[in-house]
This record gives sequence, structure tokens and C-alpha cells, in this order.
Amino acid sequence: MNLKYYMPTKVFMGEDCINQNKEIFKNIGRKAMIVTGRNSAKKNGSGEDVTKALTSLNMEYVIYDKILSNPTVISTYEGARIAKQNNVDFIIAIGGGSPMDAGKAIALLAAQDIKSEELFLGNYEDKILPLVLIPTTSGTGSEVTQYSILTNEKEETKTSIATELLFPVVTFLDAKYTLDLGLITTINTAVDALSHSVEGMLSVKSSSITDALAKESIQTILSILTKIHNQKENKTQDDKLNEILTFHDREELLYASCMAGMVIAQTGTTIVHGMGYSLTFFQDVDHGKANGLLLCEYMRLVESKEPNLVYKILNAMGYSQIEQLEKLLDSLLESKVELSEDEIILYSEKAFKTKNLNNCIVKPNVEEIKSMYNKSLTNLNVQKT
Amino acid sequence: MNLKYYMPTKVFMGEDCINQNKEIFKNIGRKAMIVTGRNSAKKNGSGEDVTKALTSLNMEYVIYDKILSNPTVISTYEGARIAKQNNVDFIIAIGGGSPMDAGKAIALLAAQDIKSEELFLGNYEDKILPLVLIPTTSGTGSEVTQYSILTNEKEETKTSIATELLFPVVTFLDAKYTLDLGLITTINTAVDALSHSVEGMLSVKSSSITDALAKESIQTILSILTKIHNQKENKTQDDKLNEILTFHDREELLYASCMAGMVIAQTGTTIVHGMGYSLTFFQDVDHGKANGLLLCEYMRLVESKEPNLVYKILNAMGYSQIEQLEKLLDSLLESKVELSEDEIILYSEKAFKTKNLNNCIVKPNVEEIKSMYNKSLTNLNVQKT
Repeated sequence: MNLKYYMPTKVFMGEDCINQNKEIFKNIGRKAMIVTGRNSAKKNGSGEDVTKALTSLNMEYVIYDKILSNPTVISTYEGARIAKQNNVDFIIAIGGGSPMDAGKAIALLAAQDIKSEELFLGNYEDKILPLVLIPTTSGTGSEVTQYSILTNEKEETKTSIATELLFPVVTFLDAKYTLDLGLITTINTAVDALSHSVEGMLSVKSSSITDALAKESIQTILSILTKIHNQKENKTQDDKLNEILTFHDREELLYASCMAGMVIAQTGTTIVHGMGYSLTFFQDVDHGKANGLLLCEYMRLVESKEPNLVYKILNAMGYSQIEQLEKLLDSLLESKVELSEDEIILYSEKAFKTKNLNNCIVKPNVEEIKSMYNKSLTNLNVQKT
Repeated sequence: MNLKYYMPTKVFMGEDCINQNKEIFKNIGRKAMIVTGRNSAKKNGSGEDVTKALTSLNMEYVIYDKILSNPTVISTYEGARIAKQNNVDFIIAIGGGSPMDAGKAIALLAAQDIKSEELFLGNYEDKILPLVLIPTTSGTGSEVTQYSILTNEKEETKTSIATELLFPVVTFLDAKYTLDLGLITTINTAVDALSHSVEGMLSVKSSSITDALAKESIQTILSILTKIHNQKENKTQDDKLNEILTFHDREELLYASCMAGMVIAQTGTTIVHGMGYSLTFFQDVDHGKANGLLLCEYMRLVESKEPNLVYKILNAMGYSQIEQLEKLLDSLLESKVELSEDEIILYSEKAFKTKNLNNCIVKPNVEEIKSMYNKSLTNLNVQKT
């Protein structure tokens, strides 16, 4: 099979990397729109680092801080309208997956006219406002992918725009912006990144290169999740998390999440993401948690048909059985999701139609998807009640 | 410390990947110059695959097949003159390190006027003919780096042009072009790639991302070198090598070499390369072999000052001691290199002045470099005589 590896984003890493490499902004554009959520870029200092850098370079900017969780198609058109109105020529998106994915769609929509009904069809002109991405969580990997995943209200799911145009020109990875993330966000985003790397290894598009990145990130993320798990009992409050995780841990987690992003930029994600989207859209389950709840059952299905593939992943984890991963994730993700029979039927049919299914080395049928929903969510219920 | 990761080349992998992705040539240019050596591109079929693809697209090309081993600065100016004379607008370089590195320099020199005395100084305009690289050995990694390493007759060494302009636009990795490589070339090039990944892990510019790629490639290369070692006694003739290595092995080796290239694109190489250049320039020792002869002594020096760093590398190798690697390399590299005391003094002083020294986490002084030459080459002599 023919494979491709492509990830052209320039990645700067390390404390104060924005300030130390700020000259690069001058090569990218003249006037920026900073796309972010309501609060986080203000609280964690990333917004100030960016505006200080731009100001010191005598560069103009406007701030668009209206991005909500799970951004909608409509909100990105609104952002693009503001970008055009302000004549900005590049986008700086700061935040978790939501502001970054919204910023990417805005950059595309500000540079070319695309009808909303054609947004996900893949036929774009070769034009986009250059993108600078600054992740402030360690999970999505959006800073190094060609995807923008939006809430698609018409189809009642999450759908991705996928085009190489969306690769950012530059990303800055500074772990100091992640220091104030609470326990739940830290866990859910780390589980999202873990799922990216595991799913990457289960994809028909995996290669030696993506496996290298996946295995390293899996090891890092699991060692940090295990550290959290082992000390969580005594220290459940958010303000204690920085007693559990060192700055070095936070850096390693951010880089592991970036590597997992580099993986899915090549491999795409699997039915795990395809199934998770309904949990997020209909049940408001956090995206990373949704993947984490479903991951082990899909690994079990793969194990029944391609045992060596799962063995390779477990080996990277330092585990011998899926149960070891399941135990850790069940303990960390903590809450239950209850679905009715009708909901499971609806979500299974939706998942079966996602593009994600095509990436799977082991492609489940609708019955197998139903069974995975049942087992993933029931097991957890039983354990918790 | 602030780090950077950047590797924008699009990598196509797999059998017949040129033909299957040939449409991309149309996005790159109109008329190509194919830069290659005297014979290999003809023998291994890569030249024909390229010309067939271009012909089927009605694209023009000229062939410049005059690249010798360890290309000189003068030869690249000559190539650039021919490129300009023929009005080509992109370069396709096919071969091992020599044609690829020459092709990269030619692409730069055909697009802008650079005086030969300023060629290595790093001040270039933002212009180059786009590059397509097709490796036919598994060693150099040049297909994914920003370096062109040339024989610098004036300075009596090998010197690199280093600029992001030199990153190829596209590379095609098809292992079928490596099937006819003989035993010695296969070993020397694999050892070169191994050295790239090990040196990458010993560099001040290493990151989690480069370590991920380095560890995976080290594992792959060592498992294949061990396979060759274990069966070599009975099958020393070149035509038997394909009884030892499967097509899958050849693919894995090619991808591992590419990953090692992605590593040194970030980390640079260390004093091992800095020391090896004199063995190649003055003693005509193959480049990969030169690195292989010197690698273990440098690892020993690092071990004496940063034991954990060497432990991490040995761990990736599945070894507990440097001696295990040394034994394998000594057996595979086979021949001896004898240097006089004066030669060692000269080469040590040259190595100490290379840019490579700055990349080293453990920076040797001139005495330590002399000692490494002495031990690397003497030990081998003792064993062989």
C-alpha cells in the first residue's frame, strides 16, 4: 500500500518560545486576528504574550474572543466576516481544540467564499489566511493537523474540514499556558491525545513514521496518567494538580499531544472518534472522555481479528492485557453515561456512516458498533452503581 | 531551552509510489533536470520510472548524470550552469547521498548567484528551484533535510550548505530501487543512518519528537544489521543479500533512514560526523563506515559524563553495554584504517573546528578527540591483525 507523510508546520517548543521567536510574525503577515475563547487566553498568559510580541514589532491586531466549546459552522462564518471587515491578513488561534479549530475554519472562510452546504466537501481554492496556532491544552493536536472539526448542526454530529491548506504555518508549544488546567480537563485532554496515537496505530494509513511518534506519545501520556491516578486519591482538588505534575511533566504531555496530532494528520482517526461524536453532540460528553470510554472496546474488537496489532500497542504501553488500560481509564474518567436502546441504534447508524470507518484496519459493522456502545457504557455503569 | 521541529517535505512511500503519485510533478514545475550518478539510476529502474512519469504527463526534462561520489563545489556550479542553459524550473535528484546533495546545491545555484567563497556562509536570497528527491540507498536521509554536504577542497574537508530552502518539496521512497545494493553499501549506508539517529539523541537540539523518531529507527536498523551479521558468514556474496533481507526489510530500512534524516534535520550531527569527514576526505573511507568506526568511542566519552543519556540510547537498542554495539559494528565494518600520529593531530584539530561540535551535549576538547581517533582505529587494528 502507498502511504504519505506530510506535516509542514514549524513547531517552536519551550518556555517563552513566543517571545524568543517573535520575529517570525513579520514573515507571516501585517495585521492579525487573534481567535480565542472567552477567558482562558487571558488567564493563562498566552494572550498577553502574543499581544506583547505583536506590539513590540509594531504590528496590528484585533481580538475575536467569542469562541465557545464545540464551535458551530455558523460561528466560524461570523468570525470570518469580522476578519474580512478588519482587513486582517493572518490568524492567531489560541486555546484548546475549540478556538484552534474555529480559527482554522475562519482562516479558510476569510480567504474564499464557500457556501455552508459545501463546507465539508473538500473543493477549495488554493487560498487561506496563514495560521499561527497556540495550544493551551495537551490533547487535540490541532496545531499540527490539516483538520478543523466543527459541530455540524444540520447532520447532528461533528464533521471535519480536511485540507492541507489548514496546516498552520507556525505553532508555539509553551507548557506554562497549561499549568492552571484542572484535574478533569488535564485528564480528558490527555486521554484524547492517547486515543489519537492508539487510533493512529489502528489505521490503514499508519506507517513506520507515525508508529514511531505514536509509541513515544503513548508511553509519555500513560506514564503521566498513571502518576495522576496513583496520587489522585489524596489530592483531588485542582489546585493540588501542580503538586502531582511537574513543569517537565506538563511539557512532556504537551509535546506528546503534538506528536499524537502529527500521527492523526497522516492516519486520521478511527471508529472510536466516529462513535464519540454522538456522545458529545447529543449527551454533551467531553470529546476526550468520549474517546476514552470507547477505546478499550474497539481495541478488543481489533484484538479478536488482528491480535498482533493490539499486541504492538499494549507492548508500547508496557501492558500485557487491554484490561490494564481499561482499569486506568475507568478510574480516571469516573462518571457514567447512560444511553437508551433507541439512542444506541441511532448513534451506531451515524457512526457507521462517518468517514472515520474507512481508516480502520478492522472495520466494524453496525451490530458490532452497537455492541461496543453497550459494553463500553454498561461496564462503566455496573462498576459505578 | 527552546527547540524547533520543522520538516516540510511531502514523503510518499511504497512500491511504485512515483507512478501512483506522478500528478504532483505538474504542481512543481514544467521542465525538470534529472540529477544523478553515472549508472545507478539506470540499473535500479528509478530513472526509468521518473522519465516514464514525466513523459506520460507531457513534461520536458534533461538528464545530468555526471555526479561522482563526494561531489565537489565545482561540480555543482557546473550542474547549475547546465540547468540554467536548459531553462529547467525544477530539479529531480536520484541516488545516494552524492547525487541528492549535489542536486540540492545545483537547485540553489541555478536560482541565485552565489560566489563560491560565500557558498557555506548561509546568506541566501529566498529563491531556489523546487526539489524532488529519490533516494536509492538507505542511509543519508538527505531527502528530508535542509543540508547539502559537499567536498570543500579549499578547506580540505566536507562542509554543509544549510538552509530551509533546501528542504525538498517531495520525496519518493520506493524500496525496489535498493534491492540490488550490495552487502558493503547496504551495511555502510545503514550504519550512517544509525549514526544519524544516535547522534541526534546526543545533540543539544534533541526533543521528544526527534527522540521518538531516533529510537524507532535505531531499533529497525539494528535488527536488520543483526540479521545481516548473523547470516553473513555463510552468504557473503552480494547476490545472496536478497536471501537475507526481504523486501519488507528493505522498506523498513529505507523508512528508518528517512526517519534518521528527519532527526538530523532538527538536531544536526555531532563530533562523530565532524571526525569522520577527515577519514573520508584524506583516507577515502566511506562516509557511513567512518561514522560507524567512531561512534562507540564518542558514546563512551558521553557515558563518562552523562551516563543516563547513553543508557537511554542503549535501552532503545536493547543493549546494556556499548561493547555490544561495538562488537556488531566491528564485525560488519571489517576493514582497518591506519593513521599516523601527525594525521591524528591534523584531523583532530580540524574536527574541533567543525560546526558539529556545537551540537554536542558533551563537547570534547582536542585531546579527547585525538584519544577517540586513537582508540577507535587502534582497537580495530588489533582485532583484525
